[in-house]
Amino acid sequence: MAAPANPGKAPPAPPPAPRPALAFAPEVLLQAQGAGLGIGAAIFDVDGVLTDGRIYLSERGEEFKAFSTLDGHGLKLLAGAGITPIVITGRDSPAVRRRLADLGVVHAAFGAADKLAAAQPILATLALDWTRVAAMGDDWPDLPLMTRAAFACAPANAHAEVKAVAHHVTAATGGHGAARECCDLLLMAAGRYADCLRGHVQTLDGAP
Amino acid sequence: MAAPANPGKAPPAPPPAPRPALAFAPEVLLQAQGAGLGIGAAIFDVDGVLTDGRIYLSERGEEFKAFSTLDGHGLKLLAGAGITPIVITGRDSPAVRRRLADLGVVHAAFGAADKLAAAQPILATLALDWTRVAAMGDDWPDLPLMTRAAFACAPANAHAEVKAVAHHVTAATGGHGAARECCDLLLMAAGRYADCLRGHVQTLDGAP
Amino acid sequence: MAAPANPGKAPPAPPPAPRPALAFAPEVLLQAQGAGLGIGAAIFDVDGVLTDGRIYLSERGEEFKAFSTLDGHGLKLLAGAGITPIVITGRDSPAVRRRLADLGVVHAAFGAADKLAAAQPILATLALDWTRVAAMGDDWPDLPLMTRAAFACAPANAHAEVKAVAHHVTAATGGHGAARECCDLLLMAAGRYADCLRGHVQTLDGAP
Amino acid sequence: MAAPANPGKAPPAPPPAPRPALAFAPEVLLQAQGAGLGIGAAIFDVDGVLTDGRIYLSERGEEFKAFSTLDGHGLKLLAGAGITPIVITGRDSPAVRRRLADLGVVHAAFGAADKLAAAQPILATLALDWTRVAAMGDDWPDLPLMTRAAFACAPANAHAEVKAVAHHVTAATGGHGAARECCDLLLMAAGRYADCLRGHVQTLDGAP
Repeated sequence: MAAPANPGKAPPAPPPAPRPALAFAPEVLLQAQGAGLGIGAAIFDVDGVLTDGRIYLSERGEEFKAFSTLDGHGLKLLAGAGITPIVITGRDSPAVRRRLADLGVVHAAFGAADKLAAAQPILATLALDWTRVAAMGDDWPDLPLMTRAAFACAPANAHAEVKAVAHHVTAATGGHGAARECCDLLLMAAGRYADCLRGHVQTLDGAP
Repeated sequence: MAAPANPGKAPPAPPPAPRPALAFAPEVLLQAQGAGLGIGAAIFDVDGVLTDGRIYLSERGEEFKAFSTLDGHGLKLLAGAGITPIVITGRDSPAVRRRLADLGVVHAAFGAADKLAAAQPILATLALDWTRVAAMGDDWPDLPLMTRAAFACAPANAHAEVKAVAHHVTAATGGHGAARECCDLLLMAAGRYADCLRGHVQTLDGAP
Repeated sequence: MAAPANPGKAPPAPPPAPRPALAFAPEVLLQAQGAGLGIGAAIFDVDGVLTDGRIYLSERGEEFKAFSTLDGHGLKLLAGAGITPIVITGRDSPAVRRRLADLGVVHAAFGAADKLAAAQPILATLALDWTRVAAMGDDWPDLPLMTRAAFACAPANAHAEVKAVAHHVTAATGGHGAARECCDLLLMAAGRYADCLRGHVQTLDGAP
Repeated sequence: MAAPANPGKAPPAPPPAPRPALAFAPEVLLQAQGAGLGIGAAIFDVDGVLTDGRIYLSERGEEFKAFSTLDGHGLKLLAGAGITPIVITGRDSPAVRRRLADLGVVHAAFGAADKLAAAQPILATLALDWTRVAAMGDDWPDLPLMTRAAFACAPANAHAEVKAVAHHVTAATGGHGAARECCDLLLMAAGRYADCLRGHVQTLDGAP
């Protein structure tokens, strides 16, 4: 087998950055822009949104949850673009706390029976009112957040009442990229998506 | 970034409670009303109904099951509306017992080879006969319960013989909201669904 | 609330046993009858057939597999009707051995690189030749068994080459009832399905 | 029951080896042939490609991933046909290292934030340039590899931007046979698929 001229070397001219392939309906993008300075934070539920809603229980009482790497990358992109990810969940588990720590999510409330009460101090800290907040949930306890948020998103697996109040129902289901789709939508509405995608590729390529 | 006028505050006028978006066929609702004082209890199988029927086994012999948070919320709503949730399963596992304890389900039978025999003393305790009982199952051992119950429900993944005797086959599959759909249906047939939804939102909002 | 006349009692006249709702194409049933005395044993692969082909691995190297309760009940029904379930798998794990022990499967070969070689002594023990054997597999290592068996079955998720040689491709996927569908088919071809279903209900009902 | 003439014996004439049932579009096969000596290595991402992108987390912080046996067999077939499988992943976990060791994959990079930088020394070791490399990924960090590779493949669950640059989007999803479909395609483009399939059956049959 003849050895190639430049083993393992990248070709001199890097390929052009890909143009966005993803698209959303104009009216959805308009709603996702929020008011004033635009969406400044996005609240995510955990069970059914960042997971598929399933709780794996062992005989010894240990609890597992399954998170998506697509979603994880989306939350990082969102934070990098200046939209603060917030997590508010009615349950509490070390697994969730670990996952959020890995993703750099610092604004979170656990075991919140009243999600609206849990959200208020976090939004106050961020100096944001509801006209600049997006919310994504899948079940009835998320309704008070979603009916107040400027932009409400629901995964495909959400309860019918939740989907009914959402501005956008994602094609993806919870735990399989639904949160990423919401992040992509918020980035695109904020005019940051194409830059994120282009910069991402360039950074990885080591190009200036 | 200019701070908003009311950081983190909810707007003064709370949004109106959502009107029910969920709907069922009239003949199904009629059947789900039961006789006399209406449905007083609902029996749920575990494997294939409250889970997707899968048993996760480790090398050390530990067993896992995966439950849905949608279903969990449904069982709580059902109990709150006066319809007692009952669980009767042919297997036994600490994981199931833990999940049911978390959800406040106190009427349960484990390792029941004959589910009909297991149901009788529970129904006697509740002073209910079969005209006021609903049952949800997915496999042949559930048939004796389902053919006697006033209302029989099966998840989308149930065996063909079980679906054939069910009054309603849920759109959702077991472990992914099938039991919640059954709870929603029973609540709606009992005329309690809209109140539950409205009260739920109001309670969470802190409104009177 | 008025107490019912017969709390918890079953009505005096038991409901009629359900008539089979399941149906298969006549040519498939004919093939599944086998030759001579009919199918006497059915060989099942594990990964992709009794599971969905996924191996869950922990950081500490522990391995999990997920089995279906529908399949488990099917293997029991098959054995009860005189068709011996056999399991031949290229891998080995304590999880599989435990599951098979629970189901009463005694004829099994683990870590079988050559599945045909592994099958021969088991069939000799059972005094069966290939004209009386069914086989269900999902990947290339199963082909030597499936091309020799009188009846070959593949789950919906099987590799294209395996589905191409199968007499029946199940509607269900592996680990979600595919093996049960194969069991149902073999029982129906053997003329035992309706009796199984009827007897099952009667036994559970405590009727004579 | 009369004992058969040759209990457990294979019939004297082995059945003919199955002809390939799988087919790909000609233009895809042409692209998958690569340049010069053809594709010599294939780079696979882990999360979302060799798994479904889900990370199972326990309360104690243990992490699980789920791999497919179909994919495992494909990576072995690929290596056997002289196309070196390479794994480059942005995360690191003992579970992945164990799985790759089981499959005999020796060229791998873990915790690679910049996948292009991680790939270069591996390709140099193999004396291959990008005209002879295939790559399969599901998310933005995989784009630098996929836009340089002679053949780029994406699973059905990949992000829209990744699918947009792929020469082939598999029908299967990650962790459920997507990588196997890519292996099959590379083997068929290299003219090795039919031999693999035939040889596989013959070897297992013990035929010469």
